[in-house]
Amino acid sequence: MKKIAILGSTGSIGRQTLDVISNYPDLYQVVALSAGENVELLRQQIKRFKPKIVSVKNTVKREELLKNEDLDVEVLTGETGMCLIASLEEVDLVVVSVVGIIGLKPTLAAISSGKTIALANKETLVTAGELVMQTCKQHNVNLLPVDSEHSAIFQCLQGENVSSVSRLILTASGGPFRTAELERLKRVTVKDALRHPNWSMGKKITIDSATMMNKGLEVIEARWLFNIDYEQIEIVVHPQSIIHSMVEFVDGSVKAQLSNPDMRLPIQYALFYPERKYTNYNKIKWGNQMNLSFEPPNFDKFPCLKLAYWAGRAGKTYPTVLNAANEIAVDSFLKNKISFLEIPEIIERVLEKHTPLPAKNFEEIQAADEWARLEANKYISK
Amino acid sequence: MKKIAILGSTGSIGRQTLDVISNYPDLYQVVALSAGENVELLRQQIKRFKPKIVSVKNTVKREELLKNEDLDVEVLTGETGMCLIASLEEVDLVVVSVVGIIGLKPTLAAISSGKTIALANKETLVTAGELVMQTCKQHNVNLLPVDSEHSAIFQCLQGENVSSVSRLILTASGGPFRTAELERLKRVTVKDALRHPNWSMGKKITIDSATMMNKGLEVIEARWLFNIDYEQIEIVVHPQSIIHSMVEFVDGSVKAQLSNPDMRLPIQYALFYPERKYTNYNKIKWGNQMNLSFEPPNFDKFPCLKLAYWAGRAGKTYPTVLNAANEIAVDSFLKNKISFLEIPEIIERVLEKHTPLPAKNFEEIQAADEWARLEANKYISK
Repeated sequence: MKKIAILGSTGSIGRQTLDVISNYPDLYQVVALSAGENVELLRQQIKRFKPKIVSVKNTVKREELLKNEDLDVEVLTGETGMCLIASLEEVDLVVVSVVGIIGLKPTLAAISSGKTIALANKETLVTAGELVMQTCKQHNVNLLPVDSEHSAIFQCLQGENVSSVSRLILTASGGPFRTAELERLKRVTVKDALRHPNWSMGKKITIDSATMMNKGLEVIEARWLFNIDYEQIEIVVHPQSIIHSMVEFVDGSVKAQLSNPDMRLPIQYALFYPERKYTNYNKIKWGNQMNLSFEPPNFDKFPCLKLAYWAGRAGKTYPTVLNAANEIAVDSFLKNKISFLEIPEIIERVLEKHTPLPAKNFEEIQAADEWARLEANKYISK
Repeated sequence: MKKIAILGSTGSIGRQTLDVISNYPDLYQVVALSAGENVELLRQQIKRFKPKIVSVKNTVKREELLKNEDLDVEVLTGETGMCLIASLEEVDLVVVSVVGIIGLKPTLAAISSGKTIALANKETLVTAGELVMQTCKQHNVNLLPVDSEHSAIFQCLQGENVSSVSRLILTASGGPFRTAELERLKRVTVKDALRHPNWSMGKKITIDSATMMNKGLEVIEARWLFNIDYEQIEIVVHPQSIIHSMVEFVDGSVKAQLSNPDMRLPIQYALFYPERKYTNYNKIKWGNQMNLSFEPPNFDKFPCLKLAYWAGRAGKTYPTVLNAANEIAVDSFLKNKISFLEIPEIIERVLEKHTPLPAKNFEEIQAADEWARLEANKYISK
């Protein structure tokens, strides 16, 4: 029986992780959960999965959770709570499914405690790729990707020599505005942008998918996760989201991983890696007509892609700044404070203003992150 | 430096194998070649690759080869010659690229001598799958598939546990008559049938592709090569021949292997397995628009598919008979003795008449093969 902690258990990936685990009550025991504000759902999860410890955003949320009910659980709060949960001695595997840079410190804590990590938090590798991978190496820790794209690449690399890889090909659905004219993007509402064609995800990630920043962040993640140059990472738009990504090898052979879109699959792959467990998920029916199409991404219509490659190649704290400015811009768009096309504009301005640090330790990364948030906020009309 | 023998060096796969090897003069030395009737090309190959021993069809061909020229090579003949070449002590790897059941005995000889086998001869596994795989097990021999489909599956299985496989999905181009009406198939000429949309191959295999018997034979090969039930082998028509086959795992994840159609790729993969070597072959350009389509095969229009599954499931010497009757029927079609639609008709009649043997040894297989050829010939109008 493996013991698991889930950071961000009330989010989209966290809920699906618990869904997967509930199918294997003999194989996984939930020891700890952390949530942000959704204490209502956390309370249900506590009753069902009986963790020993949970953590919530702050003491207000702690009181809200405990009020009117006698829960047999220890309740911690904030980043400290998350870090404690991530490094609990009895935990074998930590699922990091919180959204945002808040996932970084707990992830580093989990790695330093030698836990296996199932990583669904993009920001960890985007903002601190070098630091995180070094820490993994130091503590001989397996970092298992949960993102469908990186899981696909990871699956395609099984049994292969990493030195035989010539290119990683990240597929992108293209989001809801793939076929839209540039002109149309000027009038995009929050509702438009939240209408993702293939995946049901959290709001932040859905907007990132509409701007294609999501794919840009994944490029940076892939660079660190698979230790490969940006020149060898390509994006291809594949609207059906059936091929989740591909690896091209030096001989010209390409391996792809396919499935109907269902995040439980990469989650489960990470939980049981290197084993595969039977599922009854909706499998691809080859007896039906099917069409998979591919097209190059439009870097002009989706400047976030350019910005991400640029920041990735520039290195240092530029990716941290890219990510922080994007978080602020997306949040502001979701609050109707800026337009859709202002998202990349604001990120670009913040990147231009940035004086980079080497990004060798948490403090530098945190400093750059905080600077970028303040800077980005300067361009938001209140 | 590895030492290689190629059985069928003047055929399509044999020539391409030499083409691949010529790129790696430091890694492979050609020790022996066998050819059938094309002594002209064999002579050129002898001059270029300097094998110590070759084998040709018979003494007439031997004289033809040696006449007017002083070649520094030992020349053997017939099946005995091929078997000797296949089991030469100094040879490490034997490429079996002859077409037809004539490849079986030399392959068994090579396996019994502990050689690694790169197998491009379908008939070996179709007619004697159980026997061949048992012999491989006995002698701890690696049987590496060269067929693009089986190579694709083999590549997708690297790093995976075979017990996690739920289905093999063999892709088929559908051949030149994929979209043709059944009525049209009545008037198919040899020239029509030899016009394959994606691959340039030998005549026999091209006709097998037009009847889709090719895919039926591959299903039987896959059953033995990967030790999997017929119920778990599916065919999907994929006209672009970019995905060369796929493996579905128990969790619902599918792995596919892709490349532009080029037989040198699976040949090279087998030659250097488990390593991959750089090639400059025409790689897939993801920056272009591309469309991959999939549709179920039409078992009514291509009854050879039904016959192959039927013979495979029936087992014993039925697959041997399927193969032999098909060889006779295709040969007769190529000689304009029978019509295109008579190919499956003749095979079906021969299968119906067959009294199966257990197929546990070479003699039983040979007997069934010979019987089927005689029986098939009864239905050919001279």
